[in-house]
Amino acid sequence: MPVRENIIPLSDGAGEVVEIGAGVTRFKVGDRVAGNFFQRWSGGEPAADVHKSALGGGVDGMLADYAVLEEDGAVKIPSHLSLEEAATLPCAAVTVWNAMMEHAKLKAGDTILLQGTGGVSIFGLQFAHAMGVRAIITSSSDEKLKRAKALGAAHGVNYKTTPDWEKAAMEFTGGVGVDHVVEVGGAATLTRSFGAIRVGGKVTMIGGLSGGATELNPGLIFARRANVQGISVGSTQMFEAMNRAVEFNALKPVIDKVFAFKDTREAYRHMAAGAHFGKIVVAVS
Amino acid sequence: MPVRENIIPLSDGAGEVVEIGAGVTRFKVGDRVAGNFFQRWSGGEPAADVHKSALGGGVDGMLADYAVLEEDGAVKIPSHLSLEEAATLPCAAVTVWNAMMEHAKLKAGDTILLQGTGGVSIFGLQFAHAMGVRAIITSSSDEKLKRAKALGAAHGVNYKTTPDWEKAAMEFTGGVGVDHVVEVGGAATLTRSFGAIRVGGKVTMIGGLSGGATELNPGLIFARRANVQGISVGSTQMFEAMNRAVEFNALKPVIDKVFAFKDTREAYRHMAAGAHFGKIVVAVS
Amino acid sequence: MPVRENIIPLSDGAGEVVEIGAGVTRFKVGDRVAGNFFQRWSGGEPAADVHKSALGGGVDGMLADYAVLEEDGAVKIPSHLSLEEAATLPCAAVTVWNAMMEHAKLKAGDTILLQGTGGVSIFGLQFAHAMGVRAIITSSSDEKLKRAKALGAAHGVNYKTTPDWEKAAMEFTGGVGVDHVVEVGGAATLTRSFGAIRVGGKVTMIGGLSGGATELNPGLIFARRANVQGISVGSTQMFEAMNRAVEFNALKPVIDKVFAFKDTREAYRHMAAGAHFGKIVVAVS
Amino acid sequence: MPVRENIIPLSDGAGEVVEIGAGVTRFKVGDRVAGNFFQRWSGGEPAADVHKSALGGGVDGMLADYAVLEEDGAVKIPSHLSLEEAATLPCAAVTVWNAMMEHAKLKAGDTILLQGTGGVSIFGLQFAHAMGVRAIITSSSDEKLKRAKALGAAHGVNYKTTPDWEKAAMEFTGGVGVDHVVEVGGAATLTRSFGAIRVGGKVTMIGGLSGGATELNPGLIFARRANVQGISVGSTQMFEAMNRAVEFNALKPVIDKVFAFKDTREAYRHMAAGAHFGKIVVAVS
Repeated sequence: MPVRENIIPLSDGAGEVVEIGAGVTRFKVGDRVAGNFFQRWSGGEPAADVHKSALGGGVDGMLADYAVLEEDGAVKIPSHLSLEEAATLPCAAVTVWNAMMEHAKLKAGDTILLQGTGGVSIFGLQFAHAMGVRAIITSSSDEKLKRAKALGAAHGVNYKTTPDWEKAAMEFTGGVGVDHVVEVGGAATLTRSFGAIRVGGKVTMIGGLSGGATELNPGLIFARRANVQGISVGSTQMFEAMNRAVEFNALKPVIDKVFAFKDTREAYRHMAAGAHFGKIVVAVS
Repeated sequence: MPVRENIIPLSDGAGEVVEIGAGVTRFKVGDRVAGNFFQRWSGGEPAADVHKSALGGGVDGMLADYAVLEEDGAVKIPSHLSLEEAATLPCAAVTVWNAMMEHAKLKAGDTILLQGTGGVSIFGLQFAHAMGVRAIITSSSDEKLKRAKALGAAHGVNYKTTPDWEKAAMEFTGGVGVDHVVEVGGAATLTRSFGAIRVGGKVTMIGGLSGGATELNPGLIFARRANVQGISVGSTQMFEAMNRAVEFNALKPVIDKVFAFKDTREAYRHMAAGAHFGKIVVAVS
Repeated sequence: MPVRENIIPLSDGAGEVVEIGAGVTRFKVGDRVAGNFFQRWSGGEPAADVHKSALGGGVDGMLADYAVLEEDGAVKIPSHLSLEEAATLPCAAVTVWNAMMEHAKLKAGDTILLQGTGGVSIFGLQFAHAMGVRAIITSSSDEKLKRAKALGAAHGVNYKTTPDWEKAAMEFTGGVGVDHVVEVGGAATLTRSFGAIRVGGKVTMIGGLSGGATELNPGLIFARRANVQGISVGSTQMFEAMNRAVEFNALKPVIDKVFAFKDTREAYRHMAAGAHFGKIVVAVS
Repeated sequence: MPVRENIIPLSDGAGEVVEIGAGVTRFKVGDRVAGNFFQRWSGGEPAADVHKSALGGGVDGMLADYAVLEEDGAVKIPSHLSLEEAATLPCAAVTVWNAMMEHAKLKAGDTILLQGTGGVSIFGLQFAHAMGVRAIITSSSDEKLKRAKALGAAHGVNYKTTPDWEKAAMEFTGGVGVDHVVEVGGAATLTRSFGAIRVGGKVTMIGGLSGGATELNPGLIFARRANVQGISVGSTQMFEAMNRAVEFNALKPVIDKVFAFKDTREAYRHMAAGAHFGKIVVAVS
């Protein structure tokens, strides 16, 4: 997605309402809210040009003391979360919620495979645990796999020592395959994902970290009778449904580290270093 | 549903495969299985005359040493359950699974209202707990409500002391209403159920214990933009999906009492007395 | 739905854009548009208080030279329709589109039963004809049934001479029943509707012309495994999808009579008289 | 899909019931029926090993005077079709029905792109025409495009003279893209298909005529928020629903040529030559 020039960055954020516009009925001053990634996707199908309303992409983002949000582009945050915790929800958590609930329509007893221990996968793991879904997670670090198991993962695969993690997933599921893969790797991992799903399974593509084209045998999609869906974060209505799940199940986002506003550059560097587990937060005030 | 004369009764049951027919590939001798309530509803939409294949209704049931099941009308039972435990699943558990997963498509964070503490509602409560769904349950007994809370109910309403339980549900949900009511009472409770659901909520009708017609204002369905669905147990595919949830979440059916085969009459009397909590089982051999 | 005092009436209307607000991207001056009944339901699930944004209900309606519409509450009208023709679409056509496509999800070859020859039913008939769906229609007038058949109805039932029209529908479908009834009558017709649908059929309740409570046997919903849904018009996204169908299939709304703005009172009287077939339009300028 | 050795070939066929097994209730002697491609997929989700019951694949096929079918693997054929006409339905027609109705859930006013003028695409064109869906079709022959237009195609693209047919489709839809592509070409056409669909559009993969791997940029799936589904023919329930559509809309399969049983080899050669338009039939007796 294109990013407008000179834009205020960051798509994630949470804060307190200090003023409301004329005609606003969904919020009042003092409400604790987060912005939806797409300011103009309240529900249903997103418009083809929805990216023009992306926080930190098409419109000014959240790395600021004050931000202006659309009424239908904001949600109340769960009451048991601090602003720092709630600030982690808009992108990673809503994306994986969309993948699991709207695309894969996972039910208790289904099996999900989550790639790596980035924000999307860790939120996916917490949701899976809360809803009785069996989660397999991959990582290049045994230490991170251990932490993932403590969060409820049923199985962990170290893809450094077991590069064909799709076979490990197939084996762990008794040769059946998983119901759902949340595909974050793109070209580098897609063929393996098709090797991990069951006949009739689903693969959600939420981006393409590794980028570029890949040699893909499209016959795999036919042979596995697979369903592949590209998604992009989610709607305000999904965010609200997710918050009900977060609140009732008392889920706590996993925060790696909170930086002060003045140390934002360091926060970026910390993310680029890639050793974090969970989300990195900048405390604005 | 009509019951054929001189039929072997009971729709629920579990046992071990002692023989398979020619061409059977889904099972082998020694497998532990349960019969699906409808012997001829493997998946998709049931035939209009599906009731003709109901165990203990259209075809011989399970109160027997040996029973013959259709290959597509049987399922493997969860490995952590005894035959007595698995025997409780076919009617009550599959019915409420169908209501919650296929009709209401409940998601973690949604709210369900379960009427009473019969088998359907107790299984519903266990499923809700396993999948992060908030459950409100009603009963005429504070003792039973206490047990329901121990199983994960978020709220209990004694409908003897609080006859307008729909108002209690509305209040507990902050005036929003519940997402789903599993309606077991029929004419006696339907109007209250419409009073308990949120705008856009769902009511699944799984029978009509109280029977007969009722004075109903159909404008309520319109006004709440409600969705009402009549269901009848479920398909073999639903039973299999449910068993995966039961197994992964290590759910244990709540058994009130196990009777010996020779004491079957007493088992019926125990059920008719209505003081039980959970399922009543007859051990065949 | 409540109507605000001193409100400009009429929920239906179409016109030309003469001015757009700051930030509007979906429309430009000169576009021919209609307003969506609910100004604040673009897609997905409507808010519980969506009625507050109903044209001519919660906000000023369309019986006016100029009207202000929300950007996401307006749609471009089909290019082959005049403003008078397009003005008939927002309530009746979108309602029955919602019933047929979103609730009943009708497919070519399915059978629908439409009650009477009001605007909702006539649009339903035209949609059914365009999409290969078999339509049965009822009326108290043989003359109107004849006109309905000319519009594509497969069967007509005069409910004055055949009051048990549900039996006529059952007979016409060879004892199977219809897939879908669009229920406009409310208490007076609901039990008959359950008698007309097939096992597993659907009834959409779009209002309650006859009002009040009725003696209903809820066991009917269970026995027919019926699905009943209350709906209220539809979203902007539904309106747009419908317009694509109207345009590609070159559907023309059936207009009974066009009145001049100064004769609006006469238009209301004409509607109250009930002898019309199709929509009544007031030409604003 | 693997083909058993020494199997009777052909997956398509229709005939008259001459005998029924004990307990069969869906058919009686004299009924005119066709076999479902998968003998053991009545409804819902197919079993992972469903291919083992494929006519002419896992079990004996239809190039025979007599064939034995499973009760739930047979359907009554539309009354207005001859046996020769009905014999064309099981593979091509059910496959594209599944793609259009179950996967893409096309609605009147949507746009479909059909590749080539083989059996799947011609049935797709007829269904589209019957249900108010706009069809774009491709071919290497202007003559065939002309015939396709006579069957209701809104637009034809000659991919020999316009190899980038995806751009032609994009242009014809005013830069929006089509809602649905039925992908029959596999590796050779997939990237073009992604170039033809709208944001949020669907691609159904029904096989891989061109076979092999392809250089694919999986980012395309993400960028278009596309949904890709591999399907394999369809269930008995889909076949029955399709037959209702075929019958009510009086659709006639397009038959290229009927061969006598003794000329079967010639029929295969005619198909291999590839100049046919519509289906090739062998009359068994």
